[in-house]
Order: sequence, then structure tokens, then C-alpha cells
Amino acid sequence: MINFPIKKLNTNNTTNNTNFSSRGMNLEVEINETNQYYLTNNIAVIHKKPTPVQIVKVNYPSRDKAVITEAYYKVPSTTDYNGIYKGKYIDFEAKETKNKTSFNLNNVHPHQVKHLTQISQHGGIGFFIISFSTLGEVYLYDIKPFLEFWNNKDLPTGRKSIPYLEIKTNGKKIDLGYLPRLNYLKKVDDLYF
Amino acid sequence: MINFPIKKLNTNNTTNNTNFSSRGMNLEVEINETNQYYLTNNIAVIHKKPTPVQIVKVNYPSRDKAVITEAYYKVPSTTDYNGIYKGKYIDFEAKETKNKTSFNLNNVHPHQVKHLTQISQHGGIGFFIISFSTLGEVYLYDIKPFLEFWNNKDLPTGRKSIPYLEIKTNGKKIDLGYLPRLNYLKKVDDLYF
Repeated sequence: MINFPIKKLNTNNTTNNTNFSSRGMNLEVEINETNQYYLTNNIAVIHKKPTPVQIVKVNYPSRDKAVITEAYYKVPSTTDYNGIYKGKYIDFEAKETKNKTSFNLNNVHPHQVKHLTQISQHGGIGFFIISFSTLGEVYLYDIKPFLEFWNNKDLPTGRKSIPYLEIKTNGKKIDLGYLPRLNYLKKVDDLYF
Repeated sequence: MINFPIKKLNTNNTTNNTNFSSRGMNLEVEINETNQYYLTNNIAVIHKKPTPVQIVKVNYPSRDKAVITEAYYKVPSTTDYNGIYKGKYIDFEAKETKNKTSFNLNNVHPHQVKHLTQISQHGGIGFFIISFSTLGEVYLYDIKPFLEFWNNKDLPTGRKSIPYLEIKTNGKKIDLGYLPRLNYLKKVDDLYF
């Protein structure tokens, strides 16, 4: 979520026609299009939550128009995505890294981990979608193995990142395709149903 | 932690000993505090979604500060609240009316109805929380009986509102209390479990 303003500014994506794995991928766009596909085809109802904004000043230049002229990004208290699939509550956070060998735990915020832990405790499905953008590989990685790394990260013996190989081994690699772009629910099927 | 929201609400409430129903109630505040209570007590994980905003201009007066200087309200594509309770996906929209005899369907937006219908079709629990603020009564009203009125509203024989008596009869009246303020999950228990 802290990445949001940076992502927003990332409009310099000029190479659209390369193959799926090497293309400069915007994970958020891929997921949003996939969710739209799921919705249209009545497969699942999963939405991205709006970016939380603290609105300070609003102008009304005309009766029915409101322009927000001062606002600030707020730290969200949950993850970016949630919804329902096959009757089950689904919740996840999407993360992108350029690193090829590990996923740095600095990319994740404590409130996201706390929220996904709560979801899991209440019987929901909670996970991360982690994109190794340089490798062109995207994984679904459940909150439970994630927690083993997270909870140890501040111990003298703990590491500050999750090895790529761990995610490759215990996560599920998501196929990159055309329709849907990023069929992560197929991996939800494999892992949770 | 539990006391925090209550203290906050009591600041402008000088007559603490009056009955709950006569107090000037802000439905959104009541629900948010109730959800906070559910979260703190590990009963459910239900959050209000942020207001969707289209951000147009952001200034960076300093490296780590972002000020949004132009933004617009967007029409949301879902409801205000969702989450998980007893392993089930929960989704609802909260509405307040001053009318004592009916709930005007103009208060509801088509995207909210569409979304709740989808949720219901996918096996989730979808409903409205409707506050008759003048009466001091709040009801949980399922999306299914709601749809019977909604789908007929544009017919020559249809009505543009749902009678209070219908909601009183087929909805579930939510107790107004102290902790939690608005224990709507008790009615979810009655209706769906």
C-alpha cells in the first residue's frame, strides 16, 4: 500500500506487445483484470479495496460537483483484496519484487500480516500473491508458511526475507495467460479445496 | 483499547442515562464501533471499505510526504462493509431514513443491489442494515425479500419504497446496547445459522 503513489506514477510502460513473462507487468492491473473476468463469468466476486484517503478539504464549485483539494494517504488496516469464491471468504495482498533470489519481508506491513492471520483464524482463505517481476513468475503463498518466516524475522537466527526457493517449493506458481491474465483461483482450488 | 471508541462517542453525549433509542445516532459510527468490538473480541473480522476516490494530482512538499491536491469521489462498485464471521463471508450496506412508515428505494444504488445479489448467489450472507432514525429502530433485512421490492419498483403495480411494517415483520430488529452498540451478528445468527 505504501507503494501506491509510486505505482500510480509508473506510466512509462511502453513495451506492451512482448510475451507475457518478459513484459513489464503491473501486478495490480493484472489482478484487477482477472477479478473482472471472474466477476463477468460468475466465477467469484473479488474486488480491490479503494486506497484509504483522509479527506481534509472539499470544494463545491457547483451544486452537484465536489472537488477534494486536500487529502492524505492513510495507512490501511486490511489487505488490498477480498471477496467470495465457492462460498468461501478470500483475502489477499499482492506484492511485487525485482529481487530474483528472495522476497524481502520489508515489503510487507504488520497490519497486513495481522489481518491475514485473523482471516485464517476465522476460517477464511488468506494468502499473498508474490510477483518476482524480473523472473516473470508469480506465486500464491499461503499466510501460514509466511508466518513462520515473519514471526522469526527479528530473532538473532531469523532471516529478513523468504528465499525464492521456499516460495517456489511451498507456494503455487500462477499461470500467466490471456483470459484470465493471472488465474490465481486455479491455485486456490489446488491449495484449499 | 476497548474503551477507546466508547469514550470517543461519549464526548458529546451529555445525557448518558437516557435510553438508547432516543439518542441522536450516527449509524456509521455505531457500526464501526461494533465492528471494532467484534475484532477486539475475536468474534468476527468485518471492516468498512474506504470511500473510493479518483486521485488526480499529488504534491510532494518533502520526500516522504504526499499531499493529494485534486481528487474526486467515485461511485463505488460494492457495498460499504464486508468480512468474515464463523467462516462465512458477510457483506452489507447500511442505510438511514427519517421516514417512519417506509424505506424509500431511492436510498439504494443499483450497484449495491447488484453486488449483494452476486454475494448471495455465491453463497455469502448479504443484507441491509436499515435504521429508522426517527423511530430509533434498526433492522437487518436480507437481500432476498429486498429484491422482491427492488425488482418490481418500476412496474406499474410496483411501489418505490418498502413499508416499515414489511421490514419489521421480515427483518430482524437489532438491539441497541452499550457493548457492542449494535449487535447485528446476533441477528445474523438468528437468520443464517
